[in-house]
Amino acid sequence: MTAALPSDWTHAEQLDANDPLASFSDQFVKPADPSLIYLDGNSLGPLPLTTQARISQVVGTEWGHGLVRSWNRWVGLPREVGDLIGRHLTGAAPGQTLVCDSTTVNLFKLASAALDAQPGRRVIVTDDDNFPTDRYVLQGVAAQRGCELRMIETDMDLGISEEALLAALDTDVALVSLSHVAYRSGALADMARITTLVHEVGALMLWDLCHSAGAVPVELDACTADLAIGCTYKYLNAGPGAPAFLYVRADLADRLGQPIWGWFGQSDQFEMGPSYNPVRGIEHFSTGTPQIVGTVAVQEGTRLLAQAGIERLRAKSVALTGYLIHLADEWLTPHGFALASPRADARRGGHVTLRHPDAWRISQALIAIGVIGDYRTPDRLRLGPVPITTSFTQVWQAMDRLRRIAADESYTALPTGLSRVT
Amino acid sequence: MTAALPSDWTHAEQLDANDPLASFSDQFVKPADPSLIYLDGNSLGPLPLTTQARISQVVGTEWGHGLVRSWNRWVGLPREVGDLIGRHLTGAAPGQTLVCDSTTVNLFKLASAALDAQPGRRVIVTDDDNFPTDRYVLQGVAAQRGCELRMIETDMDLGISEEALLAALDTDVALVSLSHVAYRSGALADMARITTLVHEVGALMLWDLCHSAGAVPVELDACTADLAIGCTYKYLNAGPGAPAFLYVRADLADRLGQPIWGWFGQSDQFEMGPSYNPVRGIEHFSTGTPQIVGTVAVQEGTRLLAQAGIERLRAKSVALTGYLIHLADEWLTPHGFALASPRADARRGGHVTLRHPDAWRISQALIAIGVIGDYRTPDRLRLGPVPITTSFTQVWQAMDRLRRIAADESYTALPTGLSRVT
Repeated sequence: MTAALPSDWTHAEQLDANDPLASFSDQFVKPADPSLIYLDGNSLGPLPLTTQARISQVVGTEWGHGLVRSWNRWVGLPREVGDLIGRHLTGAAPGQTLVCDSTTVNLFKLASAALDAQPGRRVIVTDDDNFPTDRYVLQGVAAQRGCELRMIETDMDLGISEEALLAALDTDVALVSLSHVAYRSGALADMARITTLVHEVGALMLWDLCHSAGAVPVELDACTADLAIGCTYKYLNAGPGAPAFLYVRADLADRLGQPIWGWFGQSDQFEMGPSYNPVRGIEHFSTGTPQIVGTVAVQEGTRLLAQAGIERLRAKSVALTGYLIHLADEWLTPHGFALASPRADARRGGHVTLRHPDAWRISQALIAIGVIGDYRTPDRLRLGPVPITTSFTQVWQAMDRLRRIAADESYTALPTGLSRVT
Repeated sequence: MTAALPSDWTHAEQLDANDPLASFSDQFVKPADPSLIYLDGNSLGPLPLTTQARISQVVGTEWGHGLVRSWNRWVGLPREVGDLIGRHLTGAAPGQTLVCDSTTVNLFKLASAALDAQPGRRVIVTDDDNFPTDRYVLQGVAAQRGCELRMIETDMDLGISEEALLAALDTDVALVSLSHVAYRSGALADMARITTLVHEVGALMLWDLCHSAGAVPVELDACTADLAIGCTYKYLNAGPGAPAFLYVRADLADRLGQPIWGWFGQSDQFEMGPSYNPVRGIEHFSTGTPQIVGTVAVQEGTRLLAQAGIERLRAKSVALTGYLIHLADEWLTPHGFALASPRADARRGGHVTLRHPDAWRISQALIAIGVIGDYRTPDRLRLGPVPITTSFTQVWQAMDRLRRIAADESYTALPTGLSRVT
């Protein structure tokens, strides 16, 4: 597909004219600088206008005026918003998804639960290029139980191969935990196939959906996934540190025990009884008092994605990243850039990564002229168009600015060294 | 003191006229119904105007316009706001307090850390009237390690006696975890004395400050407390589900390991290195991406308390609850109410609990006529004046309405059974 695309501005304008989702960008707060191009939606998504209004209402009216009485309306939100994510984004029937805690804490809970449910199996499998918090949490969960954390060797550009996965699987494995879309390369794993292979050795499969939920259709139930976690501040556009979500397949919820025995996981919570007696179903994976402002932001962000439709979002995302790769091939290859993401659309999530020896300084120079992507070690420039807001002309402009930086080499005047947080 | 107080309205007006903190109520959103009296600040504190404005700014400007770039200003907030709490409310020198996660998750982290640091000791001590999430979390932490959870028998009205504590202490004890102020009775524990007794058997002391921080001066460093946790949505007025805080004494931070090995606890976080290598100091107790909107609400709430001054807040709180007890003695005792909180000011936190066989229906009838307190099992009515906003005339009016309900017994027409969440 990419080979046939022209690279002129008029063509970018045509792509915008034919974009059925083009009007959705009007439902988000625009940057103060209208020339800013935001290609970091895979780190922190933009602010929906409905979210801004809803937060204002929840804070000013529900908290400010309703005070403690508003807990009657808030208490069901973690499950209600979880079900909304399941219905529109992750292919999960009701009662299996909960909005709570952070991705890190949810991974800790579910990985601990999976391991403790299979005491005869002493191995967790993940991949050596999985997101840091995943690797660290799993390392901790394994260490605390004297278990082994087995690493699949990953191609940093292309993700996990089936051969490498199979080499790591045997009947000692209790849990395999992988990212659906790799944070560095954007490589998209075959959820159905991998889940089947993992089940063939009798292990449980836990998917990290942080970089896929909201950008790539996910079918947890259809793939018979066991467990999943995901964040909401990337493609769900719920804001900095908004609560994460977790999924536990219905038939597993009451079979698994989770380690953090909090009062929101207790049956008859306000009886405040003497001993922990977990509630049946997904709420068992709750811990403490839910974060309400963040949870309503997840609800609004998910509603907006549901209006756009995950299939249309995916189609646009593939078109945006395919177009970006096409322009990179034409304009940037001569300047020492190389694609560090899968080229095949079906193997790629919502972002594209380029490799360049001076990626850090280039990313800084790019920000300085109003294109926000991000740097990832060791030499990667990540560019994540936001499917629901980014236009094709913005991709064209971003790549045009990038080729200018590459051509004039002005970035070589910048200091080296990493100081920015994304 | 209470015996000498008159019960007439004029006296309540005089108390207001002499209240040095009276003007602070103008810095909070007022209820839509001006006759509403809010005595549930110990469950969910009211909304400060500065918090409403700050959330609007953080959402609209920092997230909406700043986008991912704002992480440069956000990333230090958990520690910065933790230090603010330490300086103004909990007597903790900088670098020992962190705003993160929920109370439940923080208790899990610190209790696990304490137990794992002392493998020769196999007992956790708490009290049988501690807040449910505390008892359940500790039950889980003990069960996961094959340890014993030993319960101190508590007087439900008066809190823990030194005799009962001493009976539970021996050199098998790894950790004692108690609430500084009891959620049901409001009994205030002697932090310095209890911490000393616990240290005498070589155990670590963990304080739950949920019902004391912001209402009662806390001196963690001076009492040589080892660990503490606390919530921010009660007296810190940070809103529903705002993040909690934790305290780890400086010399312990690097000696303890915590179980949730997240990327925000990693040294050189954005190097994203292969193995978990925890950062030194309090950030080691971080887990995942911090909740920013909630954290700035904690900052604003704490700043306002700092302006009022914790000593003045405590003085007003004692005066409010003492006055409330005085009116209850005079007006409610004839109707079958009894005090279920310590009578001595020095033994009481920020709320007062009354006992009545029909407390549930009375609490509902009270809400219906615009006085919000809350019910607690089995037969308790909790009344928590907000030190920074509640006036003495409001306490008078609330108690006046309560005596009318008690006198006319209209509450007996209400259904029984618990349905409200607070």
